[in-house]
Amino acid sequence: MKRIFEIDPWTITSHELNAEDKRLQESITSLGNEHMGMRGMFEETYSGDTHLGVYIGGVWFPDKTRVGWWKNGYPLYFGKAINAVNFTKAKFTIDGQEVDLAKHAYQDFVVTLDMHDGVLYREFTVFGVHVTITRLISAATKELAAWRFAFEAVDGATHQVVVDASIDADVVNEDANYDEKFWQVLDKNADQSASWMSTQTVPNDFGVPQFTVVAEQTFAGDFTQTANTSTAFAVTNSFAATVGATPVVLEKRVIVTTSRDYADNVAVVAGAHTLSQQVTARSFADIFTAHAAEWHARWEKADVQIEGDVPAQQGIRFNLFHLFATYYGNDSRLNIGPKGFTGEKYGGATYWDTEAFAIPVYLGVTKPEVVKTLLKYRYDQLAGAYHNAQQQDLAGALYPMVTFDGIESHNEWEITFEEIHRNATIAYAIYNYTNLTGDHTWERGEGAEVLIGIARFWAGRVHYSKHQAAYMIHGVTGPNEYENNVNNNFYTNWMAKWVLSYATDVLPKIDDQIAAKLAVTDEEVAHWQDIIAKMWLPEVDTTDVDGNPRHIFLAQDGWLDKDLVPVRDLPADELPINQHWSWDRVLRSPYIKQSDTLHAMYYFPDAFTEEQKRDNYLFYEPFTVHESSLSPSVHSIIAADLKMEDKAVEFYERTARLDLDNYNNDTNDGLHITSMTGAWLSIVQGFAGMRVRDDQLVLNPFLPKKWTSYQFRLIYRGRILEIKVAAEDSTVKLIDGEPLIILLNGIETEVK
Amino acid sequence: MKRIFEIDPWTITSHELNAEDKRLQESITSLGNEHMGMRGMFEETYSGDTHLGVYIGGVWFPDKTRVGWWKNGYPLYFGKAINAVNFTKAKFTIDGQEVDLAKHAYQDFVVTLDMHDGVLYREFTVFGVHVTITRLISAATKELAAWRFAFEAVDGATHQVVVDASIDADVVNEDANYDEKFWQVLDKNADQSASWMSTQTVPNDFGVPQFTVVAEQTFAGDFTQTANTSTAFAVTNSFAATVGATPVVLEKRVIVTTSRDYADNVAVVAGAHTLSQQVTARSFADIFTAHAAEWHARWEKADVQIEGDVPAQQGIRFNLFHLFATYYGNDSRLNIGPKGFTGEKYGGATYWDTEAFAIPVYLGVTKPEVVKTLLKYRYDQLAGAYHNAQQQDLAGALYPMVTFDGIESHNEWEITFEEIHRNATIAYAIYNYTNLTGDHTWERGEGAEVLIGIARFWAGRVHYSKHQAAYMIHGVTGPNEYENNVNNNFYTNWMAKWVLSYATDVLPKIDDQIAAKLAVTDEEVAHWQDIIAKMWLPEVDTTDVDGNPRHIFLAQDGWLDKDLVPVRDLPADELPINQHWSWDRVLRSPYIKQSDTLHAMYYFPDAFTEEQKRDNYLFYEPFTVHESSLSPSVHSIIAADLKMEDKAVEFYERTARLDLDNYNNDTNDGLHITSMTGAWLSIVQGFAGMRVRDDQLVLNPFLPKKWTSYQFRLIYRGRILEIKVAAEDSTVKLIDGEPLIILLNGIETEVK
Repeated sequence: MKRIFEIDPWTITSHELNAEDKRLQESITSLGNEHMGMRGMFEETYSGDTHLGVYIGGVWFPDKTRVGWWKNGYPLYFGKAINAVNFTKAKFTIDGQEVDLAKHAYQDFVVTLDMHDGVLYREFTVFGVHVTITRLISAATKELAAWRFAFEAVDGATHQVVVDASIDADVVNEDANYDEKFWQVLDKNADQSASWMSTQTVPNDFGVPQFTVVAEQTFAGDFTQTANTSTAFAVTNSFAATVGATPVVLEKRVIVTTSRDYADNVAVVAGAHTLSQQVTARSFADIFTAHAAEWHARWEKADVQIEGDVPAQQGIRFNLFHLFATYYGNDSRLNIGPKGFTGEKYGGATYWDTEAFAIPVYLGVTKPEVVKTLLKYRYDQLAGAYHNAQQQDLAGALYPMVTFDGIESHNEWEITFEEIHRNATIAYAIYNYTNLTGDHTWERGEGAEVLIGIARFWAGRVHYSKHQAAYMIHGVTGPNEYENNVNNNFYTNWMAKWVLSYATDVLPKIDDQIAAKLAVTDEEVAHWQDIIAKMWLPEVDTTDVDGNPRHIFLAQDGWLDKDLVPVRDLPADELPINQHWSWDRVLRSPYIKQSDTLHAMYYFPDAFTEEQKRDNYLFYEPFTVHESSLSPSVHSIIAADLKMEDKAVEFYERTARLDLDNYNNDTNDGLHITSMTGAWLSIVQGFAGMRVRDDQLVLNPFLPKKWTSYQFRLIYRGRILEIKVAAEDSTVKLIDGEPLIILLNGIETEVK
Repeated sequence: MKRIFEIDPWTITSHELNAEDKRLQESITSLGNEHMGMRGMFEETYSGDTHLGVYIGGVWFPDKTRVGWWKNGYPLYFGKAINAVNFTKAKFTIDGQEVDLAKHAYQDFVVTLDMHDGVLYREFTVFGVHVTITRLISAATKELAAWRFAFEAVDGATHQVVVDASIDADVVNEDANYDEKFWQVLDKNADQSASWMSTQTVPNDFGVPQFTVVAEQTFAGDFTQTANTSTAFAVTNSFAATVGATPVVLEKRVIVTTSRDYADNVAVVAGAHTLSQQVTARSFADIFTAHAAEWHARWEKADVQIEGDVPAQQGIRFNLFHLFATYYGNDSRLNIGPKGFTGEKYGGATYWDTEAFAIPVYLGVTKPEVVKTLLKYRYDQLAGAYHNAQQQDLAGALYPMVTFDGIESHNEWEITFEEIHRNATIAYAIYNYTNLTGDHTWERGEGAEVLIGIARFWAGRVHYSKHQAAYMIHGVTGPNEYENNVNNNFYTNWMAKWVLSYATDVLPKIDDQIAAKLAVTDEEVAHWQDIIAKMWLPEVDTTDVDGNPRHIFLAQDGWLDKDLVPVRDLPADELPINQHWSWDRVLRSPYIKQSDTLHAMYYFPDAFTEEQKRDNYLFYEPFTVHESSLSPSVHSIIAADLKMEDKAVEFYERTARLDLDNYNNDTNDGLHITSMTGAWLSIVQGFAGMRVRDDQLVLNPFLPKKWTSYQFRLIYRGRILEIKVAAEDSTVKLIDGEPLIILLNGIETEVK
C-alpha cells in the first residue's frame, strides 16, 4: 500500500518524483483512447528505472512458449498486446546539456492527470528553464496523440533549447518469453516537415496475422527545424529555439494507423499521411477542445458524486476515467484488457472480466450500443470458440480464457482446460444485457448462436456418475484459482445448469433463420433437461469459524476435508499468501482467492434465498484472502444485500482506491483496469441496491456512515436517471427520457 | 509395433537399412559403459535423417525454461544430460567419392549388436569396397571407446580410401528449449600422432557447475596419416590407403575424460593424454578381449535362459545388456536414466524408476555393492532433498522427480509438487536392500538419515481433517499420471503410512552417532503413530466391469464418480489415449496409465491378503491402459501371484520386447532403459514367485505354457543360485557360496 498522489476530486497530482516510485507513477498517469494508449513515462531522456509502454488496441503477437512436456490440446503460444513503436520520445537539450531528471537537479516538479478533460500535464524547472508538457490521446480522433511543449526561462537569462523528437521502433516487451524482438521496420522517411515510420510485427509460426503500424509526426509552434535524421530503427526531427522569459512552444502531433483499418501496407502509410495533413491544419487548442468535449460528454452520463469523502470521490472517478480510456465501444474488434494500455502482464487481451465485471458497469453508464459492441465481439469470435472446444475433444463452443481473436492464447493447462466457468459468463452477459435493457433482439438473434454453442459445450462437458446418479463436472478450476483440477466446483456446476436452463427458455423464441441453422433437436433438449434435473449441487450442514450452524453449498467435493484455519488466524507476515507460500501450499489450503461459491449470488441475487446468501457468505468469506482485485466488490455487493453495511463499506474501500493507493503492491506493473469496475458496482449494485427484477428497476439504497451523500447517473432503457442517496432520503431524478415507475425501497415510485 | 531386427539368442542383427527406421535402429544399437555411451549412428557421413547422440554420465546442463506464470516453488530449469562432443565421426572417401549410404547404392549391409561380447559390428559394400566397422565402449577402461575399420576391395580393382576422423563439438540437443548451444571449446590440438579437444558447458544462471569434457583420439593400423586440421569446433586426423583384395585396417581409440574426475581443466587434458599414451601401447584385439571378458563375467552372474521361445530369450538378454551398459555400480555419483545413453527425453537424469524397478533387478543379478552405490547416491544428495522440501514450505527431505544433483530439475508443478509418492520409494529401496541382503548396516547408518528425513516430510505433508477425523494427503499425482492433483491417492497415503511405520521400527536400532544427530523426539514419534493410526485409506464395496462384487481400496477420493467405461469398450483407434485424446479428457477419464493402487502390492506382496490383491486387480486393471512402459511388469507379477498365469504371461510379453519390437512406437527416441527391468521382474518375481520372507528365500515357480524351461541365476546373500523351472520340476542349484534352506513351492528345501 502506497499513496503517491494527492487527494483531489478531479485531478491526480504529485509534486514529487521518486526514482523507486517511477513505474507506479507511470501506471497511474497512463492515457488511452481505445485505439491506443501509453504509460506515463517521460518524453525526455530519463536514465533511471522506467517501463516504456506504448500499446495499440488489437495489435498483438503470439509469443512462443514451451511447457515442460507438451500434451494434446495445449496451446502453442501466449498471445500478448505488445509494446509498439515509441512515438513519445522528445529529447530536450538546454545549453548543450541533455535533460535527464534522474541525473540533474530540478525544481517545481509537478505531474497532473486532469480526469475531467482527459489530459496529462507535467512541469519542472531545470538548467534555469521551466518546462511544461501537455499530453493527450484524442478521444475525438482515434489515430491522434498530441503534445504541447512550452519552455520559459526563469533565471533572467536566455537559453538555447533543442528538441529531438523521435519515432523509435527499437522496443521490446519486458515479458517476452525468449527475449525476442517483435518488430521490424518496413519503411521510413524523415523530411523537413514531418517524419514517419512503418513497422510490422515479425513473422510467426502460428498463422496469426502480422500487424503493420505506421506512426507519423508533424510539428507546429515557435521552434526552428534544424535537422532530420533516419537510423535503422528511428526517425528524428530536430528543433531549436532561444528561450527567454516568454514561453516558447513546440506542438507535436502523431498519427498512428494500423493494418487493422487499411487494405494493405501502402494504404496504412497513405492513411497516416492523409490524417497528418488534416491535423496539421488544426491548432493544439482546437485538438484539445474537441478531445475534452468528448470527455465532458462521458462524465455527463457517468459521473458519480460522493459528498463527505474526497478520497472516495477521487477513487471512483479515477476508475471510470481509466475504464473509458481503455474502451468506449467504438470498435467491435476490441475488448477490455485487464491492464488496458498500462502494462504488459494480462496486457490488452480479453478475459472473462469483461462480461463478469465491465459489462455491468457499461450497461449503467453508456448507451446500450457500447455493450452490444462487446457482445458482438464474442459473436464474431464464435468460430474460435468452436475451435477451442474441438481442441479439447469437446462439443459446442468454448470461449477462451485469454484471447485476441477467439483462439485460446493462454498457456497453462490448469487455466485453459479447466477454468471453463468463463464460458458460462459469456452466456450470462447476453442475459444481463437483455435483462437490463429490455432489448430481446440480441438474445433471439446472434446472441442465440453464442448461447446455444455454449449450452452444447456444457451438455458435452458434464458426465453422468452412476455412483451418485447425478451429472458432474470433474477437473475444473473455479473462479477461486487457488485450487486447480477440482471436482464439482459449485459455481461451475451451478452456472452450467443455469446456461442449459436459459438456453431452454430462449430456444422457442429464437429467430427462425438462426433456429434453423442451429437445428437443436428434441433429444438434445431432453438431455439438457435431464442434466438440469440431476446436476450435482450438494448442500451440507456444517458450522462456521465461530461455531454457528450453517447450511452451505459445497464449494467442491473435497473442500470440507481441508485443514480449515480461517484467514484471521494466519500470521500477518504470511499475507498475501501468493507472495509468501509455495504454490503447493496455496493449492492445498482452504484459502479462496476471490469470490467463488458467492459469485453465482452476485450474478443472480434473486435466485438464492437470503438464508442461502447469508450462510454461504458467513461460512466462506472467513477463508477468502481476496488476492484477486476482482474479489472485494462482489463481497461488498453481497454484504450490502445482506444489510451488513459496515462490511459492504469495508470491501468497497479495498476496491475503490486499489491502484491509487497501490493496495496490492503491484500497480507499478500497470493498472487493474477490469477491477476498476469494482467501486462503481459496490456503490450502485451494493450501496444503492440496484437490480432489474421482472423488467422493473429496483433500488434499495443505504448511505455509508462516512459519507454525506452520493449520487450517480444511470442509463436505463432509454433514460438518464440521477439517483441521489443522502442521510435524509433517496431521490431519483429523470434527466432525460420518458417517465417510469421504479421500486424504490420497496415502494412503487414514478420518476419523471 | 515394428520389428526390424532378426531373432537370435545372443545377437541383434539386421540386413536392412531403411531411412524411415534409421533412428529406431540407432536406439537399439546404442552402446554404453556407465561412464559414457552413444546411439548407433553411423561413423561415416549419412545425409538422411539421423539422431546424433553421444552422452557422458553425469554431464548435464540446466536448460532454462519458462512456465506460463511462475509461482513460488516452481523450479527454474529443466536439467538434461546433453549431447556431448562427437568423437565418433569418420568420413570415408573412396576414389574421391564421399561414402554416404543415404545417397549411394550399396550391398551386403549388415549391422549386429553382439550382446555376449558387448560389441557393435557393421558391414557394407560400396564403390567396390567392403567396409567392416567394429565399435566398442570399453567395459574394462571407462574412458575408452575403440574402433576398427577394415576395407577390402571386392571388385578385383584397387581403390584409394581416405578416412577423416574428427572430434566435433558443433553439437546440439534436439530438445533444447531455446535452441541454444550448450558447449564451448576451451582448447584443442591436432598434431601428427593424435588430436584432442577440450570442451566446456556454457555458463548458466543457476549455480550448476560447468562441466569440462576432453576427447583425445589416437590411431594405429595400416593407413598413412596425411593431414591434421583444426577448425573452430573440430579437430581432424586424415588417413589414406590403397585398398586391394587384402583387408586394410585403421584402428581408432578415443579417451574421454571429464572434470568430474579431475581437479581442474588442465588436469582433465593431462588425464586424457596419460590415458591415451597407455592405450596406444595396446592392440585393438587386446582392448577387445579385456572388454569382452568383463561382459562375460556379467552374463555369468546374470544370464537368464529360456528354452522354447527364442524371441523371449533374445528379449531378456537385450534388456539386461542395456541395463548393464547404462549402469554397473562403478560410480556412486551416477544413476540410471530412463533412456540411459540412448536418447534425449528423460535423458540421463535420475527418476524414481531406479528404486522402484532397477534396484530389485540389480539386487538379484549383481553384487550388493552395486545397489549400495545406488543407495549412496541418494544419501549423497540428501541436502538437495531438504532443499526441495523447503522450496515447498515443507519439513524433512523431498527427493526430486528428476535430478542430477539432488535438486529438483523437472519443471511441471503437477509433477514436482505433486508426484511426491516418489519420496516413499527412496525409503522402500532401503527396506528392499535390507530385506534381500540381510545387511542392516545401511538401514541403521547412512540409510537412517535418508529414512528419517523422508518420514519427517510425510509427517509434515499430511493434514488432519476434522471433518473425517483422519489424516489426509491432498493435492497429489499418484503413479497414475493420467490424474493430477487428486486427494488421498491410495498408493501415496498407504506408502506415507508405511514410511512412518518403517521409520518407527528402525528408530531404536539406528547407530548412536546418527541417532544423536537426527534427534527424533518423543513428540515426533507420537505424531507419527497418530498418523499411522488415523491415515485415511477408505475401502468400499462396489462391482467390477463384469458385475462381480469387489471390496476395493478407493484409488482417490473422486474415483468412483467417474464415467466408468472399461478400456475394452474404447474404440481401438483411440488407443493409446495419450496420442489421441486431449489432456483434459485424459485427466478426467478413469484410465490408469500404470499400476497405481496395485503398486503397493508389487512392493509388499505379503502386506495384503489374496482377496485384497484379487479384488483390486480385477477392479482396476480393466481401466488400466498401460501407457507407461513400467506398467505391464507390475501387473504380470501380481497376476502370477494370483495364479492367473495366462495374464502374467500376457503382461510379460508386453514388456519383454518393448524396444526390440518398438511396442509403444517411440523407441526411435531412445530405449526405455528402466522399463527393461520389467522382463526380469516378471520372470523372477512373477513366474518364479521369488520373495524374501522372514529372511528366507521363497520360490513358487510356474512355467509359461509356450516355454520348455527357463533358468536364471540369482545373487542371494553371498551365493550364486541357479533356478531352473521346467515342465517336470523346478530345481535350485548352488553355483557359489554356502548351502541354505529355501522355501520352494511351500516346502523347506536345502540348496547345496
